[in-house]
Amino acid sequence: MLTLINMDHDTIAALATAPGGSIAIIRVSGEDALSIAGKVWRGQNVLEINERRLVLGQMFDPETGEAGDQAMAVYMKGPHTYTGEDVVEFQCHGGNFTAKHTLMCALKAGARAAEAGEFTKRAFVNGKLDLTQAEAVMDVISAGSEKAMQIAVNQLNGRFGNEIRGMYDQLSDLLAECEVRMDFVEEDLNWTPSEMMNKTLNHSSTLMKRLLEGRKDGEVLRDGVKVIIGGPPNAGKSSLMNHVLGRDRAIVTDIAGTTRDTLEEHTRIRGIPLKITDTAGIREADDIVEKTGIERSKQALGEAQLILWLMDLSKPLNEQLPPNDFKLDAPLIIILNKSDIAIDQELPSFFEEAKASSVRISIKSEDNLDRLYDLIEEAVWQEDHHHIPDVAVNARHSVLLEQAVEQIGDCQACIDSEAWELVSVHLRGALDPLGEILGLTLMPDILHTIFGRYCIGK
Amino acid sequence: MLTLINMDHDTIAALATAPGGSIAIIRVSGEDALSIAGKVWRGQNVLEINERRLVLGQMFDPETGEAGDQAMAVYMKGPHTYTGEDVVEFQCHGGNFTAKHTLMCALKAGARAAEAGEFTKRAFVNGKLDLTQAEAVMDVISAGSEKAMQIAVNQLNGRFGNEIRGMYDQLSDLLAECEVRMDFVEEDLNWTPSEMMNKTLNHSSTLMKRLLEGRKDGEVLRDGVKVIIGGPPNAGKSSLMNHVLGRDRAIVTDIAGTTRDTLEEHTRIRGIPLKITDTAGIREADDIVEKTGIERSKQALGEAQLILWLMDLSKPLNEQLPPNDFKLDAPLIIILNKSDIAIDQELPSFFEEAKASSVRISIKSEDNLDRLYDLIEEAVWQEDHHHIPDVAVNARHSVLLEQAVEQIGDCQACIDSEAWELVSVHLRGALDPLGEILGLTLMPDILHTIFGRYCIGK
Repeated sequence: MLTLINMDHDTIAALATAPGGSIAIIRVSGEDALSIAGKVWRGQNVLEINERRLVLGQMFDPETGEAGDQAMAVYMKGPHTYTGEDVVEFQCHGGNFTAKHTLMCALKAGARAAEAGEFTKRAFVNGKLDLTQAEAVMDVISAGSEKAMQIAVNQLNGRFGNEIRGMYDQLSDLLAECEVRMDFVEEDLNWTPSEMMNKTLNHSSTLMKRLLEGRKDGEVLRDGVKVIIGGPPNAGKSSLMNHVLGRDRAIVTDIAGTTRDTLEEHTRIRGIPLKITDTAGIREADDIVEKTGIERSKQALGEAQLILWLMDLSKPLNEQLPPNDFKLDAPLIIILNKSDIAIDQELPSFFEEAKASSVRISIKSEDNLDRLYDLIEEAVWQEDHHHIPDVAVNARHSVLLEQAVEQIGDCQACIDSEAWELVSVHLRGALDPLGEILGLTLMPDILHTIFGRYCIGK
Repeated sequence: MLTLINMDHDTIAALATAPGGSIAIIRVSGEDALSIAGKVWRGQNVLEINERRLVLGQMFDPETGEAGDQAMAVYMKGPHTYTGEDVVEFQCHGGNFTAKHTLMCALKAGARAAEAGEFTKRAFVNGKLDLTQAEAVMDVISAGSEKAMQIAVNQLNGRFGNEIRGMYDQLSDLLAECEVRMDFVEEDLNWTPSEMMNKTLNHSSTLMKRLLEGRKDGEVLRDGVKVIIGGPPNAGKSSLMNHVLGRDRAIVTDIAGTTRDTLEEHTRIRGIPLKITDTAGIREADDIVEKTGIERSKQALGEAQLILWLMDLSKPLNEQLPPNDFKLDAPLIIILNKSDIAIDQELPSFFEEAKASSVRISIKSEDNLDRLYDLIEEAVWQEDHHHIPDVAVNARHSVLLEQAVEQIGDCQACIDSEAWELVSVHLRGALDPLGEILGLTLMPDILHTIFGRYCIGK
């Protein structure tokens, strides 16, 4: 239990499923959950003596007494529940109105509408989940691939939290010894040898660095890679977009300047989630709408994590290079399209200078597209055979892990000189961010930021 | 059990909640439900000996053995389940991927993806619901107002089905007596007197007619009333649309001919669900787009169930009347807008001839709009104080009820002449449609039509 945080102890309710569907779940959590159920639901059995059993019954408006939808109800007694509190869930029909009505019954009977993430926040505050597990809930829900889901579920099951916890406990032991050592500085009380201390610190440091390596993988799997398709007009950018998506998303014509709005879509290549953006072809344009589109293309290219620059092999390549004023910071793959109608020409020197990988394809005849997908995969993982880790830290974790690694380095420098006071300071400096990862040392505003990202009902 | 229908006895699975949300339910029904659960889910307790209890566990891919999402599972043993079969439900996290993955695990383990409405179809075939109850499931889900939900829940609880069943049983008794009477036509076996038979038939007939009266209410509550806003250009049609919707749906300008597409929206006035359509102003137009819009207005007016004809009080009303070639079949409310800047003028004689109700309002100053809403309410229910019934038949029911009423009328005519053979024919003629309402005498293709409307997972 965290005493730092002022928690409301009222009973909260929310729709836990998406609107629509055949079934809707309304979740009620708090000490009044059972008494609220008694006011709004009557069933074939008494909930209280049928803990965790689904019982069929019917909702009632607690103010008018009018019957509502048929609903199954289940009562789960705290603390062995998701939130750690008493929980009642109603399963009613999934219509927009029925779900709203069932929730309204619970609110009329005294529940408060839950805020986004409030159920999970309560689970955290009540010690059912550490903060890394609570964060994983959202990752599980938003997972876009099997691997992303597995990493999130691992984190939810405590695998990442337990690693951090292990280091936290070891460093705490070291700190305790340091503090005693300062009090009994004159005595030889069979202290842990410096080599042993260094070994422990090395172990933690190595583990943290390994975790930090998974940061990029985590970002890729959580958020997808931002891929921008750029190039001159009519090189086949929209055709490539459509091919990757497997459907006619972008309008394709032979007319240069067909695409004006930047079109963003989510998809996957080789299991890698991509946010792929088709842009207006870059050229000198007079049309004001097209001009605006080109401005947007340039902006999009600046934000890319991977750029696919598409050129038309049936036209001189020299005239299709990215403009000089472009900063192409992201990895670049040059795609030479229309290999089926290519003209004979030398590759421009730009190709060597840019150190970009390039590939000849024909979208029309689906030629060599596999090689393109290979290149995309390599560019994302930057290795040919990449092993995705079982745990992947997020941005919040990495900042804190980096702090801890630095403090451990400083700490090790002080051990050799037996400056126990400084060792102690740096150990604390490493423990604080680790504790923050677990949520042991958190301020309420940080909690608010973390749980505010959640959906209602979780 | 219906032996008429060939049922698949395989085990089916589907997502029962809408995609997204915090929690998703995957429902599995059929004799293999428990064994499938054993292949894809491992939990803290054994499902089989914990019937109807929610147990925490984890999903596993039955082919790769890889862990999936955390999931609660519950096992409900048939026949006391929704479908009448063994049912297992998994509650996993509500992300698109996790829900899909959990369903995929069940499919890999041998379940078949359920068709739309297949769970409810099984409930019907297994005798858990009569057909009126099965139909009510969809009505509950699509209910758009409290009253619509209550009527649907009443039907789901069997209130309508029981009334039909009661008549069916009474008429069956009469038929049985008739058949015996034909066999023992010479003997006086203490037959039910003709007056008693007539009384029973009258009773049924009256009840059916009362049910038929609820047809319109049912249509209104299920589908909404089709209201068309028509009138000359710039009379304020789009402003009225926006006011009713409570938001800026239609673009409003002072320029006549602003609206071209007909805009259709769903809303509610005084609890009455409306499908309200804003149309292009009717006038002689040269612009081809506007001309097409006006054609669409005319077409929409022809399909209306209620027409709101809007005129501008600041201009001569004589010039704003509906064109003569319009067939205004639906009830008509004439709305005289801009009462705040009205010019002094006589009402055209058209008003008396049309027997339409009329009301002076100002949308701009929100003047007298309550009176307009009163008129809409009266026009829909065609009474000042309308009592919405607890049961409302649908189109399928009404056709069948009308057949039954007619047959009972014919039947009564034959009783007085003691033509028992004909009485018997007409009783059968009345029993057949009643049986069809309940689903006692149904062909598979009708079932297909009814359950095809359902969503997957119900």
